[in-house]
Amino acid sequence: MSGQFDRRDFLKLTAGLGAGMALGCHATPAPVQSHTGLSDPSYRPPTGPATAVGLTSKPLDMVRVGIIGLGMRGPGLLKNLLNIEGMQVLAVCDVRPEATASGAEQVAKAGQPRPQEYSGSLVVFKDMCQRPDLDLIVIATPWEWHAPMAQFAMECGKHAAVEVPGAMSIEDCWKLVETSERTRCHCMMLENCCYGYGELTALMMCRAGLLGELLHGEGAYLHDLRELKMTGYYEYWRLKWSQKYDGNLYPTHGLGPVAQYMGINRGDQFASMSSISSKSLSLKKYAIEHFGPDDWRSRADYKLGDMNTTIIRTQLGRSIMVQHDTTSPRPYSRLNLISGTGGIYADYPTRLALAPEAHKWLSDDQLKARIAQHQHPLWNKVGDIARKVGGHGGMDYIMMWRLIDCLRRGDEPDMDVYDLAAWCSVVELSIRSVAKRGESVDMIDFTRGAWRNRQPLGIVS
Amino acid sequence: MSGQFDRRDFLKLTAGLGAGMALGCHATPAPVQSHTGLSDPSYRPPTGPATAVGLTSKPLDMVRVGIIGLGMRGPGLLKNLLNIEGMQVLAVCDVRPEATASGAEQVAKAGQPRPQEYSGSLVVFKDMCQRPDLDLIVIATPWEWHAPMAQFAMECGKHAAVEVPGAMSIEDCWKLVETSERTRCHCMMLENCCYGYGELTALMMCRAGLLGELLHGEGAYLHDLRELKMTGYYEYWRLKWSQKYDGNLYPTHGLGPVAQYMGINRGDQFASMSSISSKSLSLKKYAIEHFGPDDWRSRADYKLGDMNTTIIRTQLGRSIMVQHDTTSPRPYSRLNLISGTGGIYADYPTRLALAPEAHKWLSDDQLKARIAQHQHPLWNKVGDIARKVGGHGGMDYIMMWRLIDCLRRGDEPDMDVYDLAAWCSVVELSIRSVAKRGESVDMIDFTRGAWRNRQPLGIVS
Repeated sequence: MSGQFDRRDFLKLTAGLGAGMALGCHATPAPVQSHTGLSDPSYRPPTGPATAVGLTSKPLDMVRVGIIGLGMRGPGLLKNLLNIEGMQVLAVCDVRPEATASGAEQVAKAGQPRPQEYSGSLVVFKDMCQRPDLDLIVIATPWEWHAPMAQFAMECGKHAAVEVPGAMSIEDCWKLVETSERTRCHCMMLENCCYGYGELTALMMCRAGLLGELLHGEGAYLHDLRELKMTGYYEYWRLKWSQKYDGNLYPTHGLGPVAQYMGINRGDQFASMSSISSKSLSLKKYAIEHFGPDDWRSRADYKLGDMNTTIIRTQLGRSIMVQHDTTSPRPYSRLNLISGTGGIYADYPTRLALAPEAHKWLSDDQLKARIAQHQHPLWNKVGDIARKVGGHGGMDYIMMWRLIDCLRRGDEPDMDVYDLAAWCSVVELSIRSVAKRGESVDMIDFTRGAWRNRQPLGIVS
Repeated sequence: MSGQFDRRDFLKLTAGLGAGMALGCHATPAPVQSHTGLSDPSYRPPTGPATAVGLTSKPLDMVRVGIIGLGMRGPGLLKNLLNIEGMQVLAVCDVRPEATASGAEQVAKAGQPRPQEYSGSLVVFKDMCQRPDLDLIVIATPWEWHAPMAQFAMECGKHAAVEVPGAMSIEDCWKLVETSERTRCHCMMLENCCYGYGELTALMMCRAGLLGELLHGEGAYLHDLRELKMTGYYEYWRLKWSQKYDGNLYPTHGLGPVAQYMGINRGDQFASMSSISSKSLSLKKYAIEHFGPDDWRSRADYKLGDMNTTIIRTQLGRSIMVQHDTTSPRPYSRLNLISGTGGIYADYPTRLALAPEAHKWLSDDQLKARIAQHQHPLWNKVGDIARKVGGHGGMDYIMMWRLIDCLRRGDEPDMDVYDLAAWCSVVELSIRSVAKRGESVDMIDFTRGAWRNRQPLGIVS
């Protein structure tokens, strides 16, 4: 989706969401509200007819896909999809006709029939979602569109695969949970970092007990995006969010993998968190240096502190540290650290230390051997093509392959709507904690207690 | 000091502190209370006659030293001292006669007259402190003795140089501040890490503006001390504290240097903090594995969570993350990370990235050149002998050299009683925050406002 919208457009869209449901939609969608504000604290979803924990679906020989958003991220996801068997792209959608044309061309070049194009308005995605012949809607639009579009897709009886963050407010987290429970459609967040080579290797090490009982994890999104925020697509969402809120606006790249190591929603659960931010300096400084003092980007106020640090306690007594910094001049890192009574794994660069010799990191040779020993089955199976097709070193391909794989089998996805909600709730909770100078805030059990008896995420064999 | 004391001994000692003041003591000591408990929240010190901010002292041609504690740490400090000009060790003190004899021998071997030995009781240090011919008392005893001994030394008109942590409770922090203000004696904490090669290089880079305006820092004490805690000297203090409290019991190695980069107490001040701990597993596990399940160390309960993470906001809007983990199997690190609008410096291993190329770390050659360019004057001046004499890579020597240097000049020390108090207050504040699941707690301005107009720590030329 292009960023050419403003608040009025958005309200127009959301106002229209309740109407126009027709063929292909299996339920009447709930009214959709604003998605750029914090939650209405009074909002409580109805209890679903049944939990969506462990939700499976009808196996599909062929997964028929429609994709919304062919700007920055969509074409890459499309490329991944087009290299996966058992999948057809029947429809592409973007407000900009040139983007859908390009997407349709991409599909045709891959040897599939040219998909139908949906374009020209902000609400045209609704027409696509209402088609009866789609199984999955892939959503790669700006942040504030993720939750309403995923919700709408499920209301239309389609599984939703939505880019990160899947929801920016607690209310939206709850709405997605409730919608998935009611419609029995999956809502999987496209958290590609959960499929990173390092992350899946660490997951295997954790599950093998190599690190002993887990006690502490660290994740982050440390990525200097000033140029993209100020001059690229990000201007129209990341930058606007940076003007409006101070917290961790993008927690899932770092938190998602750690949550999977620890079995959050699957035997453990987030309990409470505290969050603080440094002041905001780097965005304004960058703008003044690059566009002069009179440019709107230089005159704008940025609420987002350059560095946000959040500490989380879990119900089983573990601790997690999560950071967000997309404006400071520093090398990229997701930290990806997990430690327990048996040792510690960390990335950037990859390191491993194991008891009883844990006072030093393993040598390069020892590390290489351990990594080979614990390579995840997904990387064994499709690692070669993943690296060839690419997308953040191959993890994007692995993620999309696994998504299609689950839908074809009818299995529950690796990341379900509860994971989306738990991880994304940190956005609003951090904003609230930062505003109260790091006050501890309760986290939310979106599984409503089901985490206690749920088995850890399976290792794909 | 040996660890052969128990609670009754300690009470006996503290009960006796008020009496027996005689020749050499310039003031009547305030009553000394228990030092293994948290603060009495009602405790407020009297306002001193004048601030000790910027406190200077009479220049000394020759600094006459008495040292208390010749167990684990004392002999190393003594070795450093004996390689410094303008210093004489006149007295050595330890409860164990064999320790004082060994210390006296060490002094004699270095060519100084054999010092007087004080030994055989827990209160014999008082006799030493009351000698009229000492200028400085160096204190290297278990944690709970640091504050009362430093206070007593100052009451006797001696400058105190006290091992870390200088105080374990807020009340003790205040008492040391008040005593220094009243007696006009220095109370310098022996935070050797502030003199580490990496730390002083980073300080120089910060002061040169290389990292721009500072926004975020990280420090830690990540040091697997299980064996020492369970079988060595640490059993009698670190281990007992681990049984009793959950928080960051040893914050200053990581926090002190970051506080100096940011000018805490000198233009900036700590504002508030939140702290969480993981559960405690590793100590009991280690004990059971090494001593069997029936040993007292296996049956003991340990309150100290294996990993403690604390986040601090400063008055100028910076953020600090401090960690403490002395029980998990992992390589040693103090993190030592400082970042700003111009770049980032981090240790373990040493890395530097600078705008506008900050998306990658400098190459080894570039890094080497930058480090050479910003080597601290102290390392230029006495780095060679520091490396030769040793002590944590030389930083212990630099610290002791600088201590004697300041006293000979009559200059204020690099770390004063306010630094001791601010950094050490994190012990009790973290315990209080952890107990309230990470609740934000106010930090304390021990300078009573003087931080606002104080110049940053000088760079020694």
